[in-house]
Amino acid sequence: MPNEREHKTDRNGRICSPDALRDLNIPWILETIQEAVQPCFGKGQQANYIPALAEVDPRQFGMAVTTIDGAEYAVGAADTPFSIQSISKVFTLILALNLEGEQLWSRIGREPSGNPFNSLVQLEYEKGIPRNPFINAGAIVTVDRVYSHVQNFKALFLDFMRFLADSDRIDYDQEVMRSEQATGHINYALAHFLKAHGTIETAVEELLPAYFYQCSVSMTCSELARAFVCLANQGLSPVVQESIVTERRAKRINSLMLTCGMYDAVGNFAYRVGLPSKSGVGGGIAAIVPGVMAITVWSPELDLSGNSVAGVRALELFTDMTGLSVF
Amino acid sequence: MPNEREHKTDRNGRICSPDALRDLNIPWILETIQEAVQPCFGKGQQANYIPALAEVDPRQFGMAVTTIDGAEYAVGAADTPFSIQSISKVFTLILALNLEGEQLWSRIGREPSGNPFNSLVQLEYEKGIPRNPFINAGAIVTVDRVYSHVQNFKALFLDFMRFLADSDRIDYDQEVMRSEQATGHINYALAHFLKAHGTIETAVEELLPAYFYQCSVSMTCSELARAFVCLANQGLSPVVQESIVTERRAKRINSLMLTCGMYDAVGNFAYRVGLPSKSGVGGGIAAIVPGVMAITVWSPELDLSGNSVAGVRALELFTDMTGLSVF
Amino acid sequence: MPNEREHKTDRNGRICSPDALRDLNIPWILETIQEAVQPCFGKGQQANYIPALAEVDPRQFGMAVTTIDGAEYAVGAADTPFSIQSISKVFTLILALNLEGEQLWSRIGREPSGNPFNSLVQLEYEKGIPRNPFINAGAIVTVDRVYSHVQNFKALFLDFMRFLADSDRIDYDQEVMRSEQATGHINYALAHFLKAHGTIETAVEELLPAYFYQCSVSMTCSELARAFVCLANQGLSPVVQESIVTERRAKRINSLMLTCGMYDAVGNFAYRVGLPSKSGVGGGIAAIVPGVMAITVWSPELDLSGNSVAGVRALELFTDMTGLSVF
Amino acid sequence: MPNEREHKTDRNGRICSPDALRDLNIPWILETIQEAVQPCFGKGQQANYIPALAEVDPRQFGMAVTTIDGAEYAVGAADTPFSIQSISKVFTLILALNLEGEQLWSRIGREPSGNPFNSLVQLEYEKGIPRNPFINAGAIVTVDRVYSHVQNFKALFLDFMRFLADSDRIDYDQEVMRSEQATGHINYALAHFLKAHGTIETAVEELLPAYFYQCSVSMTCSELARAFVCLANQGLSPVVQESIVTERRAKRINSLMLTCGMYDAVGNFAYRVGLPSKSGVGGGIAAIVPGVMAITVWSPELDLSGNSVAGVRALELFTDMTGLSVF
Repeated sequence: MPNEREHKTDRNGRICSPDALRDLNIPWILETIQEAVQPCFGKGQQANYIPALAEVDPRQFGMAVTTIDGAEYAVGAADTPFSIQSISKVFTLILALNLEGEQLWSRIGREPSGNPFNSLVQLEYEKGIPRNPFINAGAIVTVDRVYSHVQNFKALFLDFMRFLADSDRIDYDQEVMRSEQATGHINYALAHFLKAHGTIETAVEELLPAYFYQCSVSMTCSELARAFVCLANQGLSPVVQESIVTERRAKRINSLMLTCGMYDAVGNFAYRVGLPSKSGVGGGIAAIVPGVMAITVWSPELDLSGNSVAGVRALELFTDMTGLSVF
Repeated sequence: MPNEREHKTDRNGRICSPDALRDLNIPWILETIQEAVQPCFGKGQQANYIPALAEVDPRQFGMAVTTIDGAEYAVGAADTPFSIQSISKVFTLILALNLEGEQLWSRIGREPSGNPFNSLVQLEYEKGIPRNPFINAGAIVTVDRVYSHVQNFKALFLDFMRFLADSDRIDYDQEVMRSEQATGHINYALAHFLKAHGTIETAVEELLPAYFYQCSVSMTCSELARAFVCLANQGLSPVVQESIVTERRAKRINSLMLTCGMYDAVGNFAYRVGLPSKSGVGGGIAAIVPGVMAITVWSPELDLSGNSVAGVRALELFTDMTGLSVF
Repeated sequence: MPNEREHKTDRNGRICSPDALRDLNIPWILETIQEAVQPCFGKGQQANYIPALAEVDPRQFGMAVTTIDGAEYAVGAADTPFSIQSISKVFTLILALNLEGEQLWSRIGREPSGNPFNSLVQLEYEKGIPRNPFINAGAIVTVDRVYSHVQNFKALFLDFMRFLADSDRIDYDQEVMRSEQATGHINYALAHFLKAHGTIETAVEELLPAYFYQCSVSMTCSELARAFVCLANQGLSPVVQESIVTERRAKRINSLMLTCGMYDAVGNFAYRVGLPSKSGVGGGIAAIVPGVMAITVWSPELDLSGNSVAGVRALELFTDMTGLSVF
Repeated sequence: MPNEREHKTDRNGRICSPDALRDLNIPWILETIQEAVQPCFGKGQQANYIPALAEVDPRQFGMAVTTIDGAEYAVGAADTPFSIQSISKVFTLILALNLEGEQLWSRIGREPSGNPFNSLVQLEYEKGIPRNPFINAGAIVTVDRVYSHVQNFKALFLDFMRFLADSDRIDYDQEVMRSEQATGHINYALAHFLKAHGTIETAVEELLPAYFYQCSVSMTCSELARAFVCLANQGLSPVVQESIVTERRAKRINSLMLTCGMYDAVGNFAYRVGLPSKSGVGGGIAAIVPGVMAITVWSPELDLSGNSVAGVRALELFTDMTGLSVF
């Protein structure tokens, strides 16, 4: 049972100093948060454009932490798999940067978009160069980059996730993928537009199934936290004891998550939470405390920007309680 | 004379560990940077829409640091006054938040704009609510908020800057202000548009001179570093030994600087530098290392986004050499 | 009393042949229309952005015809003065073309805008060149062109209208002009934007009163029909027996009215009515039957596009009954 | 040999009166125009986005007239087949209106777009409702409407063209269709976007081949003039002696051609020519003189708006010489 007295807190209820970090009672913090987010249930709507997502029980909440020392903590439904959706874009970006290096940026920008994640408008004004790798158009380009280097994108992506999370259980969800394929007309529109501008090389009919595949991968909060912790640890994974990405790239991916990772609510999220994060319409959010830990949270109900209501609140509580924000 | 041997550096030439921070040889770092940015001269163009700015000698460079302990360091033209321009928007935001609190956000958003700083387009789509307080439209709204609370905005703003920087020398530049007034048609267009939507209360003819006034204030790198260091120190100024803004607001202003402070290059700057920063077309940039220091830099030649070429390079070198980025 | 039997009509109730035109019983047609539009009352809203316009009794209807022979017909409130508003733009265009010739088109386009009449968006994308002379930005440019050629724009414009309509009664409405001036922030925004791009020469503070002045001129349906008939008669006014504009320009102004004269409903209006027309938010519409007559109609209630509900219906009935459309 | 003396002309060189129309020496007019447009060669560029179109000999010119009495006139390459491209959209619109009536307009607007013919931007702002049936998105919707009513769209469309033009020679061009299919990514993007919004019912993979098919039909100027003359004659074809469309619809289609038929140059074309017209990137233009004749012209070199340079000039000369414009 967590013990509140273990912490010295200031009058805002916050743990006092960075030095106190090593004594952080993470289990108690996670349990406190789990309790505090209960009133969020019913305040959002789960994604309904994909039938397979609409059928998930909405009132679930899970949260997990993996520290750079490899310690793991979890609360609630942290071992329930959910559709990672756009969170997958971070890993394709890692793969694309490792394969192409900085020349990737000749095909994608690094600026926040100021538009919905699936907007065609900015893509038209900027002549087929997506603003960043986390809007759909940009993610389609990163998939194209990886796709053009490897034999079997799907197998590669799945193996990468299993390796990072140290879990062979991970798989994609056939039903979700079928739904995405059947309803993904906007993504087809984006991909054809990119093809018209020469930004992608792969044929649209080949590429989009690969994109839908990565979005339909199912993972748990605990697995995602293990997969993300390398970005908190200068690119080195304490889980698999390997360098996943260079230190410089890890920092840069964090910066992209902070400026572009939360759909059209990046500014608001940075203001309230202040951690590099990436969310998905499956209700998951992964956040990085550089030099400290990866935090993942999942709850299916989304706000109008497409971010998990309870997830955003949980991360806000976490930074309020611990003072751990990059600012 | 700085001594290179004082630092243990890794093979990337970077100071090795965070612990080394307390031994950071800042004078040597600043001198090294000053030398390294010399090739930037001639690679940009100084602002030419205002005659008074176009006449400044372009090949100047100054840089200053104020740490949270109040220690000050400077190099080059760090004591030459320059027009702070958009950097002033941070201070009006502090004043507006202190006067209005979070209700300020009913009139301005907190999201990156994805458009040029003076665009009317997004303002029209979003029905007169500017995306953030650092694009011109948003800054005009923050001036309106302060203006509607005080007797004499100009005196208040100037006193605030003199107090923060502990320097009575600070003043506005009449010539710059006259130029802005004469050529500021886009700002007049923005202000009338905001007035049409009821976002501002003050008459446009009264408000814009106040806005142009704050932009035309002249300060040195050293003065700006002293004024900004409160944002690195939880809102408390070590210079004047007073709390300027609450800790939470200091963090939030830092987050706004990181997501919206560098015109349409925030993503790229976060990627390369990774510090909350605000730039101005006078060639100045102020950056915050949370918990550590404020860094200011000035060099008049601008890149296509309106940011100082040598200034951006200097801050990139600084984070490369010290490892001090928020990511 | 008009006599229905005077006309041979086909099974659609339409007068049979163009030859029958000379026998057209216009008084009977006008009276029939007046009766038929009564159900339109209550289906729109009069302009409310200007207090002086909002106070007009909405349930009024007037209609007038002046043929190229100079014959005049009228029904209902055809002698009640109303604010001509945007209808004035046609006359400023005549003046500007007579003063500048085709070089006028270096500052304004001739294409439909596909956007609301007061939008800033297209103006920004097209770098300060308004799409056509009938959106507000374009009209402000035509006023600027005339203004820069003459001593006293206001006197000139008023004299021109009095001359064309052969009526010294015509004047501007002080109250309307004051309202426009006080609430015209969007027009100020447009004008400052045009000034920023160098599209206009006159100072905004001088120019907009001139623009508001012409919009606030009050005329009756009968007066407007007399003023417009020159455009139906190859530029020659049968009323004052003078050439007002060359034949080619008369045709071209008609073409601009057809493609750009009815705000964002030009296509729909051309589809339903098929006559070059210009409407104003005062509830007036002036239409041209080339080679035959000018028709004016007035009724204050507007549809969502800003066109008079009863006015559009009246003109549709007119072309349905007479077969007189340009198509 | 045409004889100039047959005509009384005014000092502008124009045939004097409408009464002279019945004596119009059309062969002489066409020959005069053919000579006059020779300097246009080399002033444009033929369409190059489709290889099959880029290979056509650019310096060709043909022109044909069919009057409402069924008389036919032709000059130059009037019997050389060319790709009708967007001109086909008029005939699909006729078919769609005959099948669906006015309810067609619940899926397409009737307003000029103010944007390029293949823009996705306006489609996004207007939530998947194309502005008019002549931009690509709108034409794809009209094809969808017809497609959903008939067994074999391609056969129906080809039969319709053969019937209207009274020519069994007409066929589609396999090579052009293959090119369109291979390079039509923007059209695929548009169609998927329409599908995402529910504006079209047919699967994109089925629908676009039908759309490309109609665009790839090859016809001669003479054939097109015969096919179009029904729109000049209240919907009745003097060629096949049948009513093709109601009189009201014929007029309305003419109005749509005038306000939306010439890509983003409708205003300019109405200003210079003043006839309802539809152009295609194959270099063809079909124009209607209501109550008088259909005129077709073909020359492959296009201006920046996508309209035939010599074709626009030829029609301008025609209206200048004959005074036949709707204004």
